[in-house]
Amino acid sequence: MKATLLASAFVAAGLMAFTPAFAEKAPDAPKGNQPSKDEIKVVKVTPEYWRVVIDHPPFNIFGPETIPQLNKVITALETDPKVRVVVFESAVPGFFLTHYDFVPALTDTTSMKNGSTGLPPLPDMLVRLSKAPVVSIVKVRGRATGVGSELSLASDMRFASREKALFSQWEIGAALVPGGGPMARLPRMMGRGRALEVVLTGDDINGDLAERYGYVNRSLPDAQLDDFVDKLARRISRFDKQSLADIKNLVNENSLPPDKEIGAGWDAFITSVKRPQAQKNIKTLMDDGLQVKPDVEVRLPYYTGKLDPVP
Amino acid sequence: MKATLLASAFVAAGLMAFTPAFAEKAPDAPKGNQPSKDEIKVVKVTPEYWRVVIDHPPFNIFGPETIPQLNKVITALETDPKVRVVVFESAVPGFFLTHYDFVPALTDTTSMKNGSTGLPPLPDMLVRLSKAPVVSIVKVRGRATGVGSELSLASDMRFASREKALFSQWEIGAALVPGGGPMARLPRMMGRGRALEVVLTGDDINGDLAERYGYVNRSLPDAQLDDFVDKLARRISRFDKQSLADIKNLVNENSLPPDKEIGAGWDAFITSVKRPQAQKNIKTLMDDGLQVKPDVEVRLPYYTGKLDPVP
Amino acid sequence: MKATLLASAFVAAGLMAFTPAFAEKAPDAPKGNQPSKDEIKVVKVTPEYWRVVIDHPPFNIFGPETIPQLNKVITALETDPKVRVVVFESAVPGFFLTHYDFVPALTDTTSMKNGSTGLPPLPDMLVRLSKAPVVSIVKVRGRATGVGSELSLASDMRFASREKALFSQWEIGAALVPGGGPMARLPRMMGRGRALEVVLTGDDINGDLAERYGYVNRSLPDAQLDDFVDKLARRISRFDKQSLADIKNLVNENSLPPDKEIGAGWDAFITSVKRPQAQKNIKTLMDDGLQVKPDVEVRLPYYTGKLDPVP
Repeated sequence: MKATLLASAFVAAGLMAFTPAFAEKAPDAPKGNQPSKDEIKVVKVTPEYWRVVIDHPPFNIFGPETIPQLNKVITALETDPKVRVVVFESAVPGFFLTHYDFVPALTDTTSMKNGSTGLPPLPDMLVRLSKAPVVSIVKVRGRATGVGSELSLASDMRFASREKALFSQWEIGAALVPGGGPMARLPRMMGRGRALEVVLTGDDINGDLAERYGYVNRSLPDAQLDDFVDKLARRISRFDKQSLADIKNLVNENSLPPDKEIGAGWDAFITSVKRPQAQKNIKTLMDDGLQVKPDVEVRLPYYTGKLDPVP
Repeated sequence: MKATLLASAFVAAGLMAFTPAFAEKAPDAPKGNQPSKDEIKVVKVTPEYWRVVIDHPPFNIFGPETIPQLNKVITALETDPKVRVVVFESAVPGFFLTHYDFVPALTDTTSMKNGSTGLPPLPDMLVRLSKAPVVSIVKVRGRATGVGSELSLASDMRFASREKALFSQWEIGAALVPGGGPMARLPRMMGRGRALEVVLTGDDINGDLAERYGYVNRSLPDAQLDDFVDKLARRISRFDKQSLADIKNLVNENSLPPDKEIGAGWDAFITSVKRPQAQKNIKTLMDDGLQVKPDVEVRLPYYTGKLDPVP
Repeated sequence: MKATLLASAFVAAGLMAFTPAFAEKAPDAPKGNQPSKDEIKVVKVTPEYWRVVIDHPPFNIFGPETIPQLNKVITALETDPKVRVVVFESAVPGFFLTHYDFVPALTDTTSMKNGSTGLPPLPDMLVRLSKAPVVSIVKVRGRATGVGSELSLASDMRFASREKALFSQWEIGAALVPGGGPMARLPRMMGRGRALEVVLTGDDINGDLAERYGYVNRSLPDAQLDDFVDKLARRISRFDKQSLADIKNLVNENSLPPDKEIGAGWDAFITSVKRPQAQKNIKTLMDDGLQVKPDVEVRLPYYTGKLDPVP
């Protein structure tokens, strides 16, 4: 993978113009680059059925400090002899999991070692989740923006709140290419046309449309979502681990993108971050209140849509 | 293909523990391994338009004795110079076509010669149906469980009764891997997430959900289904056989799984049958009344869901 | 590509039997092979946002004279440094863009030079549109039959009038194989079963069904369609051209058919045109009033459905 190399070359070349946008800190910015705390909690409902709870208020922003925490969870899912099924969910109202943290320096991310797949950490973990011998389910309430959408897409099944789920690959709005694999995964799930709409408009997709497009398995009335997913997970948790893994592997063979496609997407993201237009847009969004003001997080397509047009 | 080898090795190794589950006969079990009778009838509506009627009451169970009967039909569809379109349907209320027969010894199946594709007979026939120079349509009323779902998936088009159709790849509930190709065919039709839901939960998918997931072309009100399919088949039956075949071949080139994927699924099924957990689950289901009591056939996901959890 | 060769061989072989059907002119036939006029108009809403208006009344039939006009537009979209997004739409009520013109001699088409992809002009232009560094959107009102459906499928996104859009690959009804790529593109968008239904029945697909099948991104109430598409195009037109192109390229890598599949479809079309059954059917349809009488164009599936059955 060339991703880390690319980023290193970029830093080595002294192209620090982007650094301010990543490092600049709004007065009461959340503690993106402080010592890590438990943003991701594992609850073992039974030895066979785990819940992974994302708890990083106020917006469930995903930063470099989240990576080792998620990595620990993925590794446990890969190696635990008992677990059959895992449900990812959020403890933060309004947000499932959202975009990457723009406060820490980009090098906090790009200096991390590649994972066991040979990919940089974030795409590495997503690829490993798709291949893990355990059934992964996301239960989406609130915004699944950027990394949140990408974690959903890398999971095995997706169930969403009809009223409260919002999916978004918003990156093009900031002149960025998404880095966590949606160009590879979305067309295989919903066809080329709908995938292009998602990634080229950067607009929100609500629960109803997400179901119609195949972005999720189903959207359910919010009041029924928890029971539905719990019942489904409990059912799977009683089944034979070997047969579950065999079936999943056979499906994976024809439905997962090759790792190199995921790597190419990450490289394109890193390259896009270097471009002045992305730096300018990120800076404007941070000045508007991204990562600080709820309104900017909640109405992100509005804020990206009113940025100056790119000349 | 290693399927037959695998099974033979299994039998040779004296692993007969599974045989009881397959051979045990409930007092009034249906005549799975008796001399074959006409379970599959061909009705030539016109020389160009055939109907294939599955008529094996009470449950349309598919057993080794069904294989030569279906093979005869598939061969006729491959070679008849006139037939353009075939509709598969059931004469048995409540059942389109359901799971494999667990009464005959497994060797009744595994001792059969591979077909012309080099695959064992069941996957061989399904693969040949997909490639035959004739348009195949299934009209599904009642349960399409296991082989019934797999025959549907191998056909060219699927139309279902909104009220009365139920699709199910129930096998994981018995600790089995499905053998007739759904891991290869479902993701190509409905995307990875929905396909994994079908094969990893083993739950029923009703007519409405089957349409939303793309499991079928459309689900229609039961009262309209017969007329709709008949009109569609008659329309196709007037068209040019060569152009129909050319168009289908061009679609097949990018949409059919390679034969080896189908073979790998069959091998995984045979391997799964050998595992003690599958033997135990099948025995319990037979003790509960599988293949005898309508309630067990009709509410199969309930019965698989209450089996002892796998340790 | 062998398409042109095939066609030339065909003509060289003196198989002129088909020529009458193509060349025969109804008394008041539209001017298919007259000197070209502006059938395709480009309106630059802004330098970044173009509209391409198809204006060839009364039916927006696509003929050999349309090819250089469309080619000019595609080339401009490939090379213009500013354009981000293009919307294809029709100025003719009831018709988006319909089938190929059967009035000019077939050699008017087959004598044209292959394009830069190595494919004959029509498939060449469609392939180039899919790969162009610009976001292409079709807004479909009225019939998108044959070439109209194929232009839609080659575009990046499709939005349709729920009440007024009709999609059709009608060719099988005339014993033809479609030539502009639907066998390659449809299964990748809607799965094998629904794709086969579209190309093997030759029947109309209305706006509602087109959305359910994934033939379009969405169908919208006719009164909302213009505003919706305009807003979406304006949003994209503000975004970074480089990132738009990078994202689209990454999606294309896994979702576009290889060019040779498109070429094989064109070859099969040319071969099918040579068959006497296609010649007979086209002649009957022309005698019925194809290209002249609105009723034949508007109810094309009815007229193809009542042709003599093919023996």
